[in-house]
Amino acid sequence: MKTLKDEILQRGAVLSDGVLKVDSFLNHAIDPNLMTKIGETFAERFQEEGVTKILTIESSGIAPALTTSLQLQSELVFARKRKSLTMRDDLYSAEVYSFTKQQASEISVSKEFLQPTDRVLIIDDFLANGQAALGLIDIIKQSGASIAGIGIVIEKTFQPGREILEQEGYKIESLARIASLSDGKVTFYTEKEQTSQ
Amino acid sequence: MKTLKDEILQRGAVLSDGVLKVDSFLNHAIDPNLMTKIGETFAERFQEEGVTKILTIESSGIAPALTTSLQLQSELVFARKRKSLTMRDDLYSAEVYSFTKQQASEISVSKEFLQPTDRVLIIDDFLANGQAALGLIDIIKQSGASIAGIGIVIEKTFQPGREILEQEGYKIESLARIASLSDGKVTFYTEKEQTSQ
Repeated sequence: MKTLKDEILQRGAVLSDGVLKVDSFLNHAIDPNLMTKIGETFAERFQEEGVTKILTIESSGIAPALTTSLQLQSELVFARKRKSLTMRDDLYSAEVYSFTKQQASEISVSKEFLQPTDRVLIIDDFLANGQAALGLIDIIKQSGASIAGIGIVIEKTFQPGREILEQEGYKIESLARIASLSDGKVTFYTEKEQTSQ
Repeated sequence: MKTLKDEILQRGAVLSDGVLKVDSFLNHAIDPNLMTKIGETFAERFQEEGVTKILTIESSGIAPALTTSLQLQSELVFARKRKSLTMRDDLYSAEVYSFTKQQASEISVSKEFLQPTDRVLIIDDFLANGQAALGLIDIIKQSGASIAGIGIVIEKTFQPGREILEQEGYKIESLARIASLSDGKVTFYTEKEQTSQ
């Protein structure tokens, strides 16, 4: 997705070989028009998949998942990292391991919001090690719903997330694929990008 | 806002005299079309206020703030409850006390996203004791920006939030005002609602 890649080049900041800061338009400040284009692009890429529901994880997944849900006209559910006051029982839960924080945390979705008849599209802002997506997949499997695919705003192809998820047979669409953040520079993955653009 | 009040009556659940569960369309599962109408309504009510930026707090504020920002064509910023990896310094921070949890937590916004020239609209899902709004106001004041007003999806008029904020002189627009959750029943506040609908 060219607009997104242009924004990453213009406004992203490489903090280290592994960390790209996109706070200024994606996950702290949000450009609503870019977010709408992201939603439109995900909707195009998954329009044949019979999506009935979109599942993401708080907080940074909510904005791209919402614009996608508007385009696909399907309900959105976001998994919670902390249980809220009104969310006390009847939950599907999964562990998500964070390599950055070196600790596992639990994510949860109320059972009432995922049905065996649902076909669920997972949306998230980043794909690195795939742990968040695996947690969401775990929750969807518990519900008996099927998985329509996984839509990722920014993928780091130098980390193993895609490989792990593709081995499980899921369709993954990433809007920007980053091959390297070495030397303080963003290098996009080019080979597949040319065909999937 | 009639559509919202209808949804609250049809799909909300009163858990106690103080707690309304709206997980099924507002803050766990999200109805994207209702969220769009919420954004349109906030945009109408604040269209004369010269809004340049919308500020909310993760996670439940993000969806209504995003649809509002699309309508007003202004950037959205969400305050973070936990500092992210890419958000290490140059922060405005404020304490937010939760009466429910009986503890204070810190919220933060990167300094680069609020400028003294900004006119900021605060959006949040609930107004009860006003503590989250006060935290956001504190952050906006630190930045030198001005406050365009406060847009609330659901206000509990039987809690003191509005009174505290009005004493400070802010314009508050709530889309549904709930006077009571007693006896397991939602009773809307009627007097002002008829004029502000």
